[in-house]
Amino acid sequence: MRDTFGSILRVGIVGYGNLGKGVELAIKQNPDMELVAVFTRRQPSDIGSEAQVVSITEMENFKDKIDVMVLCGGSSQDLPEQVLEVSKLFNTVDSFDTHAKIPEYFAKVDENTKAHNTLSLISTGWDPGLFSLARLIGQSVLPEGEDYTFWGKGLSQGHSDAVRRVAGVKGGVQYTIPIDNALERVRSGENPELTTAEKHQRVCYIVPEEGADLSEIETAIKTMPHYFADYETIVNFISEEELKAEHSTMPHGGIVFRSGKTGNGTKQRIEFSLALESNPEFTASVLVAYTRAVGKMAKQGQTGARTVLDVPLAYLSSKSDEELRRTLL
Amino acid sequence: MRDTFGSILRVGIVGYGNLGKGVELAIKQNPDMELVAVFTRRQPSDIGSEAQVVSITEMENFKDKIDVMVLCGGSSQDLPEQVLEVSKLFNTVDSFDTHAKIPEYFAKVDENTKAHNTLSLISTGWDPGLFSLARLIGQSVLPEGEDYTFWGKGLSQGHSDAVRRVAGVKGGVQYTIPIDNALERVRSGENPELTTAEKHQRVCYIVPEEGADLSEIETAIKTMPHYFADYETIVNFISEEELKAEHSTMPHGGIVFRSGKTGNGTKQRIEFSLALESNPEFTASVLVAYTRAVGKMAKQGQTGARTVLDVPLAYLSSKSDEELRRTLL
Repeated sequence: MRDTFGSILRVGIVGYGNLGKGVELAIKQNPDMELVAVFTRRQPSDIGSEAQVVSITEMENFKDKIDVMVLCGGSSQDLPEQVLEVSKLFNTVDSFDTHAKIPEYFAKVDENTKAHNTLSLISTGWDPGLFSLARLIGQSVLPEGEDYTFWGKGLSQGHSDAVRRVAGVKGGVQYTIPIDNALERVRSGENPELTTAEKHQRVCYIVPEEGADLSEIETAIKTMPHYFADYETIVNFISEEELKAEHSTMPHGGIVFRSGKTGNGTKQRIEFSLALESNPEFTASVLVAYTRAVGKMAKQGQTGARTVLDVPLAYLSSKSDEELRRTLL
Repeated sequence: MRDTFGSILRVGIVGYGNLGKGVELAIKQNPDMELVAVFTRRQPSDIGSEAQVVSITEMENFKDKIDVMVLCGGSSQDLPEQVLEVSKLFNTVDSFDTHAKIPEYFAKVDENTKAHNTLSLISTGWDPGLFSLARLIGQSVLPEGEDYTFWGKGLSQGHSDAVRRVAGVKGGVQYTIPIDNALERVRSGENPELTTAEKHQRVCYIVPEEGADLSEIETAIKTMPHYFADYETIVNFISEEELKAEHSTMPHGGIVFRSGKTGNGTKQRIEFSLALESNPEFTASVLVAYTRAVGKMAKQGQTGARTVLDVPLAYLSSKSDEELRRTLL
């Protein structure tokens, strides 16, 4: 497979939800890449991509036509099986983000790809992904210090699903928002101990069903274990029109801090933050930059599993090493 | 040389100014490293290091005792010669930061190290260095967008030297400060065109000589070409005591933005910022993390010149790949 890499990287997408659509859009912003085909378990005619859409059962026919496959399925159901199937034939990139299961996932992918002479980069995106890089830089440069990760302001899919399951709720969304006072304490260099609940507020926008008891809904949300009970939670009731007009995009973001000391107690702070109007489009853009890196590494003959921590950042760029040194250093 | 690496990385320091002192302090925070010796052109007995201090002329005797040398000389006078001498015998790390001359410096170091089977990482620190990484990530992930770098709030050595040369000035310092309104315009996603002068304010604290004409000093500073004439410049007069009490540390920092668009015009922003109480101590901490990386790469048998753009970030850490995947992803 490795001898088929040309000057244009030939990319395939497996799965065409929000992330897959984002990958298609991101590839268009990168003239050194070409989207060869989208692979789906659905009826290909049901998929609204501009690219060729193919049933996932015909993937094998593309073995010599695609350099890297971007896996856009979900972490819980799709990726653990998909990555093992697809990486028998192709180099892959994915956004597997079930943190606790990453070591096991890595080991399986590493074994499978080595057996099939392919290369797979797992768990990229922004967290895990760019935030992992920020944490690594922070810990390595400031070994005496503390890490802090804040998420938001952002739409949380899991918490939005949870509020929509409450009796009397017709529709709704939940935003995770960093608490200003906690941010300030971190920025001051105080190095406070903060739980996730002390760092974040949960703000819900709920469309009630007609005649529903609003205070019952509010109590049911605020007392929901794990999701809300430990948090400062605010419940706002809105109309269906407002939900559609104001809350139908998927913003997200967050901040990784490293607050440390050097020398004789000198305070130093590193901060990496993202403010994203579309979480899936940004995640897709990170996947596509790492798709380029996988293309370069596979061309060198590398096989096995990799993570963002293993990739020289120059590999993310379409520019030559000379140009990068001249313009970025 | 490569077979001499043990489990503790043996480090040497060449040059013992603020940066060299910072490197000594940073090595103490990293238990997997040991400072073997400081090399100086001065009288070794004049150097206040806790480590063994040796004349630079005796460096060759340490060929099998040191794995990586950290070069702490200045970019204009020391490094261009020093790196070629030292890298004949040792792997090196330096902070060469004359941006325009980096390509030429890289080429010379690359040729020299390849001829002598050594490895040299050049131009690390925070700018060039961590800021270069931030720009590379930003450009690669958001190819349609703009970069912005703001420096400060920070003490500028060059500008402080310039104000101290003005007639009637006994002492003084200059801080470079990002202009809030410019920061806000960038954060809004407006992608404005901004010159360096439109992004930064210059604030001076001046101790006048007795009887000096303050308004003459102020005019001389504000009209100084290149340094101040194009900038919003504020001149404050203070006492010698206040200068000593309030302005004797070397804070610095800055922000690198990438403000881009994905999909159909969705705004996305990446921000990497540093708030440093001591510029030289932080720069030294970055050098020491990259010293570890050079140790690992040299152990693999790598030779030649490298920059921060070429180094997988996992190499900065003292932790194993397994531990990094488990804790950072």
